[in-house]
Amino acid sequence: MQDLSSFLEESRRLVDAALEIHLPTESSEPRTLHRAMRYSVFAGGKRVRPALVIAASDLHHGHRESVLPAACAMEMIHTYSLIHDDLPAMDDDDLRRGRPSCHKAFGEATAILAGDALLTHAFLILAGQSAAEPRALLRIISTLAEAAGTGGMIGGQMADLESEGHEVKLTTVERIHLLKTAALITASLSMGAILAGAGEDDLWRMQRFGRRIGLLFQITDDILDRTGDSRSLGKTAGKDEAQGKATYPGAAGMEEANSRARQLAREASEDLAPYGDRAGVLLQFTDYLLRRSH
Amino acid sequence: MQDLSSFLEESRRLVDAALEIHLPTESSEPRTLHRAMRYSVFAGGKRVRPALVIAASDLHHGHRESVLPAACAMEMIHTYSLIHDDLPAMDDDDLRRGRPSCHKAFGEATAILAGDALLTHAFLILAGQSAAEPRALLRIISTLAEAAGTGGMIGGQMADLESEGHEVKLTTVERIHLLKTAALITASLSMGAILAGAGEDDLWRMQRFGRRIGLLFQITDDILDRTGDSRSLGKTAGKDEAQGKATYPGAAGMEEANSRARQLAREASEDLAPYGDRAGVLLQFTDYLLRRSH
Repeated sequence: MQDLSSFLEESRRLVDAALEIHLPTESSEPRTLHRAMRYSVFAGGKRVRPALVIAASDLHHGHRESVLPAACAMEMIHTYSLIHDDLPAMDDDDLRRGRPSCHKAFGEATAILAGDALLTHAFLILAGQSAAEPRALLRIISTLAEAAGTGGMIGGQMADLESEGHEVKLTTVERIHLLKTAALITASLSMGAILAGAGEDDLWRMQRFGRRIGLLFQITDDILDRTGDSRSLGKTAGKDEAQGKATYPGAAGMEEANSRARQLAREASEDLAPYGDRAGVLLQFTDYLLRRSH
Repeated sequence: MQDLSSFLEESRRLVDAALEIHLPTESSEPRTLHRAMRYSVFAGGKRVRPALVIAASDLHHGHRESVLPAACAMEMIHTYSLIHDDLPAMDDDDLRRGRPSCHKAFGEATAILAGDALLTHAFLILAGQSAAEPRALLRIISTLAEAAGTGGMIGGQMADLESEGHEVKLTTVERIHLLKTAALITASLSMGAILAGAGEDDLWRMQRFGRRIGLLFQITDDILDRTGDSRSLGKTAGKDEAQGKATYPGAAGMEEANSRARQLAREASEDLAPYGDRAGVLLQFTDYLLRRSH
């Protein structure tokens, strides 16, 4: 059974090499824009979502080379969302992964366009995979667009903005987290499984697992925002609370947040039971998400 | 032969009805975001690009129902680009089609997300057309993403921003116009032709015609910015010049701009010669683009 850190290291290397190929070069026009896109993509992200695309494909006996474009597209969508999220009109964050955020480094107009360009480029890469089965490609394009759109990530960002400074119920916090974070995590797993030719049962199982670890991911993120320091987080700690964001600990308290995290990790592990040892990496990842909050 | 204005009226009615169906409803969450998307899409645009999708399909014996989703996707991309273009960090325009621009009506954060959402939704609609041939769908997705990305529209916007306040050569102005405007116009014609099953020769001819009328479109737009008034334009007249934008009359003078417009209209008409009477609508459209500047 492969160890989680060696898997993450390996998939990160594969994904970074593929991103290098799939992103426009800095020597082609418009250079500043291409530099801004690459600055944010290669800012030292952990490549969690692409790793999940690969892990879900591995689990269903897929080929790694054939899922790398989808893994790259997912990372581009994630990066675009961070660039736009950091803008002054949105979360107004000067720091991202320990470096100036895109608009601090390149100016607001370029940051808006760099985000737009990464979002657009993700679909260009997916549609251009002539080696893959056309219907599977269309399905992963739909999956990504659905998860990134108003019924997913963007919907979550909007609900997040609207909830700022208001007291929100726990059910609302969970709904925001499911949209804002779990949608892309679930889509990552789905895309990997679809490209590997997984059946509908497996796909359904991946989606249930994705919603659980996606929610777990965001809850432990909320906990870390309260307990961590900016340096080790690579972003401004305590910012959610300062901005009056809807967070799980904020709505339910730290004890309840920790208890919900443990419950989600347990349920997510149960989702993986049918796969036995082959799900080792995803099982360890679930455990890692839980432990990082403690 | 159908008359241009009756064709535009008919295609506009078809496209508006299809947009009504393909856009998320205002009664579904996130409501404010869906309202902002619809506010900008239904702001009284002329639906030129969707009409070109339909006209190119008609010309190659396509079915109108089967190109309407692509026509809607194109209009969503166009609308998103206007929303982001109007933002304070970009062109900072308070007025769009005679009404407050999206960020004036809904705030900047919502406008950024509404643009992102329209861009994402365009690809969701295209990928979900189960009735169409999968390879043709993938090809129009590639066509749209390419034309809207850094090698097309976004690249043009970036070059446009970078040229502000600088004296630019005429070749640079033409390059910006080709990227910023002609790319989407050409993609509209290509998408219609691809969906109608046009051969490679026809496709190539549509692309050449598209680049010519796209450039013509932007040159006459530049001329109108100098000679028109805000009320009849539905946007702030003289704005390009005030902002030091790269315009054709600015770089070459009005006389040369008018002469280039006439040349492009003549060449574009020649591109249509092989189609005879069937190209009547596109021929009249070319003529309309030329005349609107006089």
